[in-house]
Amino acid sequence: MPSPEALVDLLGALAYGELSAFDRLADDARMAPTLPGRAEMSAMATVEFGHYERLAARLRELGSAPEEAMEPFVAALESYHSLTTPSTWLEGVVKAYVGDGMAADFYREVATFVDASTRALINEVLTDGGRAEFAVREVRAAVSAQPALAGRLALWARRLVGEAISQTQHVLADRDALMVLLVSGTGDLTGVAGLIGRITDRHEDRMIALGLNS
Amino acid sequence: MPSPEALVDLLGALAYGELSAFDRLADDARMAPTLPGRAEMSAMATVEFGHYERLAARLRELGSAPEEAMEPFVAALESYHSLTTPSTWLEGVVKAYVGDGMAADFYREVATFVDASTRALINEVLTDGGRAEFAVREVRAAVSAQPALAGRLALWARRLVGEAISQTQHVLADRDALMVLLVSGTGDLTGVAGLIGRITDRHEDRMIALGLNS
Repeated sequence: MPSPEALVDLLGALAYGELSAFDRLADDARMAPTLPGRAEMSAMATVEFGHYERLAARLRELGSAPEEAMEPFVAALESYHSLTTPSTWLEGVVKAYVGDGMAADFYREVATFVDASTRALINEVLTDGGRAEFAVREVRAAVSAQPALAGRLALWARRLVGEAISQTQHVLADRDALMVLLVSGTGDLTGVAGLIGRITDRHEDRMIALGLNS
Repeated sequence: MPSPEALVDLLGALAYGELSAFDRLADDARMAPTLPGRAEMSAMATVEFGHYERLAARLRELGSAPEEAMEPFVAALESYHSLTTPSTWLEGVVKAYVGDGMAADFYREVATFVDASTRALINEVLTDGGRAEFAVREVRAAVSAQPALAGRLALWARRLVGEAISQTQHVLADRDALMVLLVSGTGDLTGVAGLIGRITDRHEDRMIALGLNS
C-alpha cells in the first residue's frame, strides 16, 4: 500500500496536470483555423477541468487542501508547458494527443500500485474522450495536403517526449514518497525499465496512428 | 414574432459571446494570485463553454450551422476583447462581472421579444452562477487593503462599458434583422431609451455592489 504522502502527491500532481491542461488547451484552441476546431479543443479543455474538480474533491476527502497538494508540482508542469508552447495549431493538436497521452500512460502505470478506489478515479479522469480520433484526423489531413509537415511534427513530438521525461525526473528526484511508490510498485529497477518500455511502446503506437513514425 | 434571421442572429451572437467568454476567462484565470482563485475563474470559463454548447445545439435544431451563425459577430466581439484585455487579476474579475453582466442584461431584454422556448434558453445560459459574489469578495478585499485601487477600477469599468456600447452599435448597424427586432420589440425609440435606462440602472447596481460607485 502506498504511503498517505505518496497518495496525496500522486493526486496533487494529477490535479495540477489537469488544471494546467485546461489552461493550455483553452489557449491553444485559439490557433484553430476554424470555429468548429476551436470549439472541439475548447471542449477538451472543459473536460480536463471537470477532471481537476474530481481530483480536488478527492484530495479534500483525504483531508488535504488541493492547492497545497498541487503546489510541489506547479514549477515542473509550468516548465514543461513553457518549454513546449505550440507555435501552430497542429503542434497544439500533437501536444494534446502525444504529450498528454504519454503523461496519462505514466499515471495509469502508477495507478496500478494504489488502492482500487483511487485507481478507478485515476483511470476515469484519464479517459481520452475522442482526442485520438480528433488528432489523427487533423494531422493526417494536414500532412496529406503538405507532406513536408510530417518531419517537422515528428521532431516536435520528440521534443515533447524529451521535456516530459526531463520534468518527470525532476519531480521524482524531489518527491521521495513518489519515488518509493514507483520503485516499490514496480518491484525493482527491472520493473521500472519494464514500465518505461510499455510507455514507449504506447507512444510509438500514437506516432504510427498520426502517420509520423519514420 | 421575430424573423427567423433575427433569431439565428441573436443565438449566433450569444453563442460566439459564450465561446469567446470561455476563451477570455480561461486566459484571465492565469493572472490569479492563488490557485483557488485560478480554479474559480477557470470553473466560470467551463460554465460558459457549456452554455455555448447549448446554443450551438439549438442553432443546429433550427437548421443553422453554428459557425455560420456566429461568423458575423466574431469581429465585433474580438474587437471588444482586444480593446479590454485586462492587465491585472482584478481587472479580469471586474470585466467578468461588469462587462459580462451588462451583455447579459442586454440579451435578457432582447429575449423578451422572442418565443417562450428561445427566451427560456437565453435566460438559462445567462445565469450568473455565483460570479457576483466572487467579484464582490475579490474586489472589496483588494480595495480595502489598497484604497487607491478603487479609482483605477472604476475607470476600467467605464472603459468596459464604453467599448461594449460601441461594439453593440457596430453590430446593430450591420444586422438589419437584429435592429428591427430591437426597435419593433421595444415599440419605438422611447422604448429603446427605456431599455438602455434599465441596463444602465443594473450596471450602477453592480458598481455599488463592488464599492466602485463614486
